[in-house]
Amino acid sequence: MARPLHHPGTDDISLDGVLHALADPVRRSIVATLIEEGEKNCAETCDGLAPSTISHHHRILRESGLIRSEKRGVAVFNSVRQAEIETRFPGLLAAILRQHRTSEDAS
Amino acid sequence: MARPLHHPGTDDISLDGVLHALADPVRRSIVATLIEEGEKNCAETCDGLAPSTISHHHRILRESGLIRSEKRGVAVFNSVRQAEIETRFPGLLAAILRQHRTSEDAS
Repeated sequence: MARPLHHPGTDDISLDGVLHALADPVRRSIVATLIEEGEKNCAETCDGLAPSTISHHHRILRESGLIRSEKRGVAVFNSVRQAEIETRFPGLLAAILRQHRTSEDAS
Repeated sequence: MARPLHHPGTDDISLDGVLHALADPVRRSIVATLIEEGEKNCAETCDGLAPSTISHHHRILRESGLIRSEKRGVAVFNSVRQAEIETRFPGLLAAILRQHRTSEDAS
């Protein structure tokens, strides 16, 4: 049987981990897409990237506590732990994603 | 003559660089102290750390565009490029430092 995916508890979500995870444009895009479009499987959010790269970015997001990943059959579905992140760091995710969208619009 | 210290221009300050620089509690403390207490030399902001560690953290902050470092004689004085960061990423630095102070109070 496959090992269950590890997710940190809400209190173990660290500011270091969240900022490190979001210091990458691909990972910010994954989070922004999951918030805007709801739960998705890994492949859907990272069109055009190699499977190992997709998996790497999702692992960092999951280990930081930003996303929850759930295996269903052979697919893994991801969603942003938005309420928990908001409880832990009020306003932070919104502030970062606002800048991310602005930079994307400018590029 | 010593090489002048490199600082990125305002437009070259990247969200990736700023988030990476702030994904570390020592660097967040340096930035918070410089904002609260004004310009300081490296040693004053990092009491108890090894000189090479202090220098490493200030270099990352400088290269990300978060601080400006100015050599005067043998000392290097640092200040946060607060107005430039605010122009580039409105609200971001305040949102991150608010979380940093809250986590410090809790620990």
